[in-house]
Amino acid sequence: MLGLSGLNAQTTAQLLSDPTVKAALEAAKRNEPHFIEEQIRVCEIPAPPFKEEVRAAEFERIFKQLGLKDVRIDKSGNVIGVRPGLVPHPNLLFEAHLDTVFPEGTDVRVKRNGDTLTAPGIGDDCRGLAVLMSVIRALDEARVQTPGTITFVADTGEEGLGDLRGTKELFQTTLRGQIDKFVSVDGTGLRITNVGVGSYRYRATFKGPGGHSFGAFGLGNPIQAMGRAIAKIDEFEVPATPKTTFNVGRVGGGTSVNAIPFESWMEVDMRSSDRDSLETVHAKYRKAVEAAVEEENKRWKGRGPVSVDNALVGYRPAGSTPADSAIVKTAVEVTRAFADSAPLGEGSTDSNVPMNLGIPAITIGGGGQGSASHPLDESFNSKDSYLGTQRALLLAIALAR
Amino acid sequence: MLGLSGLNAQTTAQLLSDPTVKAALEAAKRNEPHFIEEQIRVCEIPAPPFKEEVRAAEFERIFKQLGLKDVRIDKSGNVIGVRPGLVPHPNLLFEAHLDTVFPEGTDVRVKRNGDTLTAPGIGDDCRGLAVLMSVIRALDEARVQTPGTITFVADTGEEGLGDLRGTKELFQTTLRGQIDKFVSVDGTGLRITNVGVGSYRYRATFKGPGGHSFGAFGLGNPIQAMGRAIAKIDEFEVPATPKTTFNVGRVGGGTSVNAIPFESWMEVDMRSSDRDSLETVHAKYRKAVEAAVEEENKRWKGRGPVSVDNALVGYRPAGSTPADSAIVKTAVEVTRAFADSAPLGEGSTDSNVPMNLGIPAITIGGGGQGSASHPLDESFNSKDSYLGTQRALLLAIALAR
Repeated sequence: MLGLSGLNAQTTAQLLSDPTVKAALEAAKRNEPHFIEEQIRVCEIPAPPFKEEVRAAEFERIFKQLGLKDVRIDKSGNVIGVRPGLVPHPNLLFEAHLDTVFPEGTDVRVKRNGDTLTAPGIGDDCRGLAVLMSVIRALDEARVQTPGTITFVADTGEEGLGDLRGTKELFQTTLRGQIDKFVSVDGTGLRITNVGVGSYRYRATFKGPGGHSFGAFGLGNPIQAMGRAIAKIDEFEVPATPKTTFNVGRVGGGTSVNAIPFESWMEVDMRSSDRDSLETVHAKYRKAVEAAVEEENKRWKGRGPVSVDNALVGYRPAGSTPADSAIVKTAVEVTRAFADSAPLGEGSTDSNVPMNLGIPAITIGGGGQGSASHPLDESFNSKDSYLGTQRALLLAIALAR
Repeated sequence: MLGLSGLNAQTTAQLLSDPTVKAALEAAKRNEPHFIEEQIRVCEIPAPPFKEEVRAAEFERIFKQLGLKDVRIDKSGNVIGVRPGLVPHPNLLFEAHLDTVFPEGTDVRVKRNGDTLTAPGIGDDCRGLAVLMSVIRALDEARVQTPGTITFVADTGEEGLGDLRGTKELFQTTLRGQIDKFVSVDGTGLRITNVGVGSYRYRATFKGPGGHSFGAFGLGNPIQAMGRAIAKIDEFEVPATPKTTFNVGRVGGGTSVNAIPFESWMEVDMRSSDRDSLETVHAKYRKAVEAAVEEENKRWKGRGPVSVDNALVGYRPAGSTPADSAIVKTAVEVTRAFADSAPLGEGSTDSNVPMNLGIPAITIGGGGQGSASHPLDESFNSKDSYLGTQRALLLAIALAR
């Protein structure tokens, strides 16, 4: 059993020489083939956006079987299980996400070709889920007693319109005020994400009465109001560092070249890793849309006035965990035990939520080698993937103190 | 036989008292039921846009049967037949259009309910075609010898993207320099159209390389370039008289909210009855699109430059025939013989083409009562529709001199 006092003083090197830790790492390596099979098995349980229930029920069963305490499913469908420490705090939240980007009905059967597995979601995030299971098992087999508590979660709604739904629920409600550190295992490789790119996404719908282009000329035109908004957006000045961006990604509207349209719409995306910069561009956007509609109605003297429904369709909070923070330094050190380098990166993942709240948080890859996420032919190569499991395991031990 | 010298001096009242003219008008009234049947019969021969051949072939047969000379079909599919006068000029071109707005496969069977006929194109312009036939027959039965020549045409491409194709061909090539006056019979009622609203229609396609909204931020954005163009268009100042209009009627583009689009497009319509005003707004439009692309590329320092394909997809020349011109005064006088009032109006019809060339031209309704043109349940009520036939007949006689 690993003692509390010992852990506090230990460097990664010291941890690696601890017999209990060693035993846990050996267990992780030994169990890797089993958890690759588990990765395949859970990947073949569909988990479309907003429909993670079946896979979640299986994780409730798995968490109980692996010996976690207080296993439950919260309102957002997150599966939660606790591995108590000697004391309740620090409480490390250690998670991987259940959901995929693939719609219901997608063929999720896994194809094997040597070490390569191909299936929708096989890396993102069935790999994270496999690592989660393997870490719990290894801690259990080696009887590692961490000083702090580890709360394991298989969470919902990480992808796309899910908008980090599950993790937001954890921090806002389910485990509000109870989490001290956060690690999510997402995808493959050994990367460390310490910058959380936040985003606002809008769908603005402009409406007016519409009419014949010649006969009804003089009415406000929803497409032309939208054009004014887009022209304003295009002029936004944003900081290069922290990188802040905006994009009008899609537009549509109108029924005929010779009809004043009754409706038009645009989809706009704004991103930044910096909370204030994101809020600034967000405020500019809202103002631009309002000003455009006002100008349009002034231009046409209020005839057939145009109105807008500026609907927020996505929000991911921005944040970052400083490179010189304890959690990032520990993650880098731990990673260097398994790889030549430990580069930091940015992304938009579950750790955005705690980062935004100022809670130390990172997202790490689950090891192995993956293709790009989100295509139907997503693939995962399990060569030396045990290193990812070991890295996650050692990091959990190092942070749960 | 109506003599040349007599006709020159005759007012409408005098014409109406001429026994030959009277006989022709009586024939038109007597034959009305027959030509209503003909209206139905030709309406049931489909004539979709750009596919008027079958109906045209039937009119070639009809024109020959009705005794017209030099019957032929020109390169654009117009069916032409001549009723020689005592001298070749003035040569009155008297036409109705073959084409409908309805696509291939539309059910064109005519439903009858008392005097009401319902079918796609029954009024626009099967009514005009029926009047054309009936006028030729009445002139023939009453042996009316007009001093000038009447060239009858069942023409193509009046509707939509047809863009007045047939009539353009007549004036540019087939009958170039040979026409002195022009009447087209289009639709129902007894209206007189002496103002030809011209139009330019564009489809502008903006292109760039596209990319990820965050990763590739800083590239020119085709939607945003288009927004700049639309904002400029919305600021155009146009004269209220002669009425000149512009409209961005449809827009589209983009694949995802979080991707810089590689393409966007807009459809723009500009109209005026005044040739110069139309050219002015047209020039402004072309300049706005070019300036918008230039600004977009300057804004993003030429990275991922945006280009535009500004395609002209429609052009209808503008023009008008003055209210105090001989042809309009004659049309008003003739119409007053059959109706309490003879209001003038504006439209976009085959007469735009000669109006633009300064050739005296009007478009008249074919009588009867019609619903709005272009819906599938277009209808025509034949109550007193013979008055429309008689009006057209008397006008042809009055103008062919």
